[in-house]
Amino acid sequence: MSDDGVQYFEDIAVGATASFGRYEVTRDEVTEFAAKYDPQPFHLSDEAAAATHFGRLSASGWHTCAMTMAMLVENLKAHRQAGLGSPGIDQLRWLKPVYPGDTLRCESEVLEKRRSESRPEMGIFKSRLTVFNQDDVAVMTMVSNGLIRTRDAG
Amino acid sequence: MSDDGVQYFEDIAVGATASFGRYEVTRDEVTEFAAKYDPQPFHLSDEAAAATHFGRLSASGWHTCAMTMAMLVENLKAHRQAGLGSPGIDQLRWLKPVYPGDTLRCESEVLEKRRSESRPEMGIFKSRLTVFNQDDVAVMTMVSNGLIRTRDAG
Repeated sequence: MSDDGVQYFEDIAVGATASFGRYEVTRDEVTEFAAKYDPQPFHLSDEAAAATHFGRLSASGWHTCAMTMAMLVENLKAHRQAGLGSPGIDQLRWLKPVYPGDTLRCESEVLEKRRSESRPEMGIFKSRLTVFNQDDVAVMTMVSNGLIRTRDAG
Repeated sequence: MSDDGVQYFEDIAVGATASFGRYEVTRDEVTEFAAKYDPQPFHLSDEAAAATHFGRLSASGWHTCAMTMAMLVENLKAHRQAGLGSPGIDQLRWLKPVYPGDTLRCESEVLEKRRSESRPEMGIFKSRLTVFNQDDVAVMTMVSNGLIRTRDAG
């Protein structure tokens, strides 16, 4: 950790875990997101959802991703990183439906890290991120790739 | 294709390509999404973005996913499938920034398909989806996994 409390590549510990976030999923937000970005009937009304394996109104999987990002960004306010963005995500899986009334939280684990060969001022690390609901059921998981500045580019 | 024009597992052709969608990215929508789900400075103002490699205000990567889903759902109105949802996404990559004023479109290609061994009424197919901007630059790519009903469960 540097003097300013910011985490750099050197501070990332493989195997490190974290638990953070709290997001209350509301019906209004679920239908508002779906109307704009994922207007499939089972994301818009209980009646349409009753005819599907969801059973009742559930959130768009992309909405769950967005809510997860909100938790991540909130967490980074308290645990600042010299982050340089993310090139992408692997193995994104929507494991269980997310319903209005659910409360989501996150757990993360650092899987691996390596310094960039072409750009020594930068490193890459992979984390598994799992989102749970209030019953501690995993509803979504992904492996995120993060770029982060090195403190020592040498 | 069945009599009702709906595409089932049997109708999915490996190698088939499609081009669809048109989404105009507006500044208001970029900042509205970011304020709610990804409030990092470079997604909120040009001034903050100028200090980063983005150069100017760019859309959250998750917003690009959401806009892409909107194009997919719109396309499925005209090309209906007996879809059963998606278990998830692989190799999601944000290749280039998406800026207000950009117009996005999609290209897809079916990579593989297989019938479910445990559930013969269902099949799984993988598609590569690439999102381009108005300059035909690929800004995002992913491999999506789709579940689809079989016409013949035998």
